[in-house]
Amino acid sequence: MESLAGTAPTPRPAALPYYVAFSQLLGLTVVATTGAWLGLYRGGIAWESALQFNVHPLCMIIGLIFLQGDALLVYRVFRNEARRTTKVLHGLLHVFAFIIALVGLVAVFDYHRKKGYADLYSLHSWCGIVISVLYFVQAPAPPYLSSQWLVGFSFFLFPGASFSLRSRYRPQHVFFGAAIFLLSVGTALLGLKEALLFKLGTKYSAFEPEGVLANVLGLLLVGFGMAVLYILTRADWRRPPHAEEQALSMDFKTLTEGDSLSPQ
Amino acid sequence: MESLAGTAPTPRPAALPYYVAFSQLLGLTVVATTGAWLGLYRGGIAWESALQFNVHPLCMIIGLIFLQGDALLVYRVFRNEARRTTKVLHGLLHVFAFIIALVGLVAVFDYHRKKGYADLYSLHSWCGIVISVLYFVQAPAPPYLSSQWLVGFSFFLFPGASFSLRSRYRPQHVFFGAAIFLLSVGTALLGLKEALLFKLGTKYSAFEPEGVLANVLGLLLVGFGMAVLYILTRADWRRPPHAEEQALSMDFKTLTEGDSLSPQ
Repeated sequence: MESLAGTAPTPRPAALPYYVAFSQLLGLTVVATTGAWLGLYRGGIAWESALQFNVHPLCMIIGLIFLQGDALLVYRVFRNEARRTTKVLHGLLHVFAFIIALVGLVAVFDYHRKKGYADLYSLHSWCGIVISVLYFVQAPAPPYLSSQWLVGFSFFLFPGASFSLRSRYRPQHVFFGAAIFLLSVGTALLGLKEALLFKLGTKYSAFEPEGVLANVLGLLLVGFGMAVLYILTRADWRRPPHAEEQALSMDFKTLTEGDSLSPQ
Repeated sequence: MESLAGTAPTPRPAALPYYVAFSQLLGLTVVATTGAWLGLYRGGIAWESALQFNVHPLCMIIGLIFLQGDALLVYRVFRNEARRTTKVLHGLLHVFAFIIALVGLVAVFDYHRKKGYADLYSLHSWCGIVISVLYFVQAPAPPYLSSQWLVGFSFFLFPGASFSLRSRYRPQHVFFGAAIFLLSVGTALLGLKEALLFKLGTKYSAFEPEGVLANVLGLLLVGFGMAVLYILTRADWRRPPHAEEQALSMDFKTLTEGDSLSPQ
């Protein structure tokens, strides 16, 4: 069944829409629960006040978790659309995610500056640096030492680039995309825990309502991460080879068969 | 290149040993750094004292991170051994991981009991519960609502079980194995952060040596998680279809071809 998956052409897998709907429900619940946590226990959100900090978790969760996760799912949800359309949607979601995450980053650095707090001392922030670096620079393998974002744009949006280079780069792009997403979920958990422990301290162990709500938010984040990873990695839900590629290989096949029919 | 991966039979991929060696180096560095952290800043390890707590992080990192990660890699490292041998090694590593993790869990619950601390209030512990549940019960899909551990043992070690059931269950087993491992890494990060914030408090932001070492340990954990995930997911490093299955399908092919040669 697994090995057949790659070749099965058009029919949409029956269970996929339900899993996608479930992941979206989880993702929206994550965003709503973050809003509820900030509204109920942190005084809500504002830019020009001590509430500026609260812009950070909300923006990072909308940008780096929800929108980034959905950017990865685009290739599973729109399995039979033109590849170019799907790519544009994938890129647009990443651009939105990036802009919203940037607002969240400006919020926390600005808040730290106003309060005179130190920057970038915690494991949460170090993981954030790793995410930023991975987001912009493609990871260890020397042949791919270039900006993932730029390489992604130039190679995928403009299919004129060398096909073999693109097909060598694609699996790296997919792996590091998933890795950045999962690390974003982990970093959100660290930030949540930090925010809880700084405020609640030992009261955390008394099952304070805020602590319980934040724990639930943490598990929802884990659930969203796992749901996205499941949809991404399920072999028989992979995108079928796209129409243009199939057409090309058909042409090639016709040519080859044409050759073999010629006198030998 | 990717699509050819499944069919390529014997040659070991040239880069695989280097990536595996790198992952092992990272894993051992994680264990050594955990030991250094506990030895330098937490007074070392002992069972019958306040140091009993320190047994918890060390055991969880050796069991649920290092050994569990290696249990997943067994199928990539021993690509051409008999499948049964690989399965036994995979199972043994999981049994060792489980026993060591159990010692780590007993240590923390015993320590909490002696100190009169509350149990299971934090996000770290809630993630731990999720890991335990996933470890024993196979996740959401109703057809697989049985113990992963038991199903894993009965289906994989005793190949008498229905082949189609096993081939339907295998991808779920692989996905939830990877998910449990990644969640273990995330939970270790949460525990590390908790231990740091409880002890250092606001001193954490002054770049205390213990804080910096623990942040480095956190990044090493992230690196080990990513290295294992990379080796597991790289398409052309998948295990080739095993000898017995190939032999069976060859027999089947011979039979079928034999049939087609008989008068029609």
